[in-house]
Amino acid sequence: MIAEKMKPFVQNNSAIRMMFEEGNRLRAKYGADKVYDFSLGNPSVPAPDCVREAIIDLVNNEEPTVLHGYMSNAGFEDVRETIAQSLNRRFGTAFSAHNLIMTVGAASGLNVILKTILNPGEEVIVFAPYFLEYGAYVRNYDGKLVEISPNTETFQPNLKELEEKITANTRAVVVNTPHNPTGVVYSEETIKELAAILEKKQQEFGSVIYLISDEPYRELAYDGVEVPYLTKYYKNTVVGYSYSKSLSLPGERIGYLVIPDELEDSATVITAAAIANRVLGSVNAPSLMQKVIQKCVDAEVDVAAYDRNRLALYNGLKECGFECIKPQGAFYLFVKSPVADEKQFCEAGKKYNILMVPGSSFACPGYVRLAYCVSYETIQNSLPEFKKLAAEYGL
Amino acid sequence: MIAEKMKPFVQNNSAIRMMFEEGNRLRAKYGADKVYDFSLGNPSVPAPDCVREAIIDLVNNEEPTVLHGYMSNAGFEDVRETIAQSLNRRFGTAFSAHNLIMTVGAASGLNVILKTILNPGEEVIVFAPYFLEYGAYVRNYDGKLVEISPNTETFQPNLKELEEKITANTRAVVVNTPHNPTGVVYSEETIKELAAILEKKQQEFGSVIYLISDEPYRELAYDGVEVPYLTKYYKNTVVGYSYSKSLSLPGERIGYLVIPDELEDSATVITAAAIANRVLGSVNAPSLMQKVIQKCVDAEVDVAAYDRNRLALYNGLKECGFECIKPQGAFYLFVKSPVADEKQFCEAGKKYNILMVPGSSFACPGYVRLAYCVSYETIQNSLPEFKKLAAEYGL
Repeated sequence: MIAEKMKPFVQNNSAIRMMFEEGNRLRAKYGADKVYDFSLGNPSVPAPDCVREAIIDLVNNEEPTVLHGYMSNAGFEDVRETIAQSLNRRFGTAFSAHNLIMTVGAASGLNVILKTILNPGEEVIVFAPYFLEYGAYVRNYDGKLVEISPNTETFQPNLKELEEKITANTRAVVVNTPHNPTGVVYSEETIKELAAILEKKQQEFGSVIYLISDEPYRELAYDGVEVPYLTKYYKNTVVGYSYSKSLSLPGERIGYLVIPDELEDSATVITAAAIANRVLGSVNAPSLMQKVIQKCVDAEVDVAAYDRNRLALYNGLKECGFECIKPQGAFYLFVKSPVADEKQFCEAGKKYNILMVPGSSFACPGYVRLAYCVSYETIQNSLPEFKKLAAEYGL
Repeated sequence: MIAEKMKPFVQNNSAIRMMFEEGNRLRAKYGADKVYDFSLGNPSVPAPDCVREAIIDLVNNEEPTVLHGYMSNAGFEDVRETIAQSLNRRFGTAFSAHNLIMTVGAASGLNVILKTILNPGEEVIVFAPYFLEYGAYVRNYDGKLVEISPNTETFQPNLKELEEKITANTRAVVVNTPHNPTGVVYSEETIKELAAILEKKQQEFGSVIYLISDEPYRELAYDGVEVPYLTKYYKNTVVGYSYSKSLSLPGERIGYLVIPDELEDSATVITAAAIANRVLGSVNAPSLMQKVIQKCVDAEVDVAAYDRNRLALYNGLKECGFECIKPQGAFYLFVKSPVADEKQFCEAGKKYNILMVPGSSFACPGYVRLAYCVSYETIQNSLPEFKKLAAEYGL
């Protein structure tokens, strides 16, 4: 009784549910503090105080029919202007309110821009490993997802293969940096090379290829690493941002799209994206949270807490003999499975109450993802268990 | 550079923008209190105090990683259970948490259920006049919108024509009661007759026809009129609800779907709808607002204020000689244009600074919609101007 397109989702859903229930089963049996659940990307660091203060200030001082009311589908103009100016200060860009569309988180932002630009059958390129929901978003608009195989040396994007796979039918390339699930930050060199390839291919095919930069992890960067702002390198870039991680507000569904003036046919794309926001059913991003963002535009969560987790888990796993790229961003480690079948490795982990996500859930088998947005104690207590797990594989 | 499907929207958008700019032009020229803008369905009555109190209580007492965190795509289970119990008390239903999916307002809820059930080319029936965005939602999933012509005597749905237009390809019928733009409440008799037709046609075609009840105006009912709860009359009913009007929270995007156990293949539809909520990009309804709803589940806005507006405008217009059904719900009057071309009538209204929406924007030319969610003073001050407008037409 459901749509054909929904059937594969429902079938896969039972696998996800089983993993979730396994976690609950282990917690019930051994106690929550004896289960090392690295499977969920849910921020463990609370929202900064600024968020609470802004909410109280707003409900006490703003007219409720405005605070909770409709506004333009793109969002409150003053909120967008504040964010634009903040971006300009930080990245030397020249945005103003009209370049921003407030969205119901980054997932909705990606849907909005894909609905705006994608015709049935057109191709969207993604780099493995990648967040599998990208495929669902592209299929929502009957687009075709094209995968680039992973560069497992560095987990920087495989640009040689990109160049080969761009066709006249390529409409967009999606990048995600800092990266889920590897934690890698794409270097400026990578970005420049990527931009050059896209420029060349646009020329060759007389087409417009949008670069969609999905950046919910932008503020979670370590070791002073620079996260290049992509609109400065390639003019047909659309940025999708979310405050889910930067302000620990994932449940609130608040983010934005940036559509720069330099983008081909920018005014039409901006108009169409605001309409897509409406007709997809969001109508607008939640109004109170828009105004909270305005007040907290330069606030930050305690990134140092994630950094401490990162170093403890990375160093601990290396000591156990596991292989892993040292992540410079986000809150994930992408660890090489000691056996080719990483699902078997995930199963073995459960014996030690360690929950990990198989790399095949990111189109990159042979690896597992550990989300270290957990308490520091969980990491410390998990390390002896990882040692036992490593021993099983003779590490 | 935008998708073909988006092009008609962008073309139409300039007309909407012109109307909006006309309002701003008039306000700038004559002053806001001299412009009688009945064009927008934005609640004029503020959210009840309960909302402010709930927000402050929540941010002061709830753990921020929970309050603003991810939850199941269907929403917090305790919130859904509270709403289910409230519905059960009010309507004698037997829902529990698993029958509800919290959504980003009603517009998103409608998108979620249409994505869940609709295959390309399948038909969705709507009764004119209707909210034109229904067409956009149906086209999002490549469905085909089928219109039933209006019954301009009563503005109850034209059930004879419905019976003729249901085919083997009919997947859903959308109703909206209390109704935008007419303010009519569908009677129990209408609902029973509608249910009987759907039952008969399901039998005839061996199909499942979903009745989708879009009910953002449920709480705005006057004169003690009963608004029947549709799941009790037809088992394949899905209810889409929003707190936009009932708690004056349109910008916050908070509502829900009810999918009863009695619905054919209910468990699969519920699972698929929660997934559709995720992959369309909403992921979940805004988390803080979900918990606000839980605390304000039986709160109400000042419906008496809308009622006062309703009576003042309805009686005033009748006195001017205009023809209009007396609305029993929502906050709209649907007035017969004194000339067949109601757009010409809307233009004439502007001379008196009266802004109205042509019925053709609801697939029902010859009428205009007046949204009386404005201040009482606006209504009082507009009446002498309506009198002048009526005189132009010899009323």
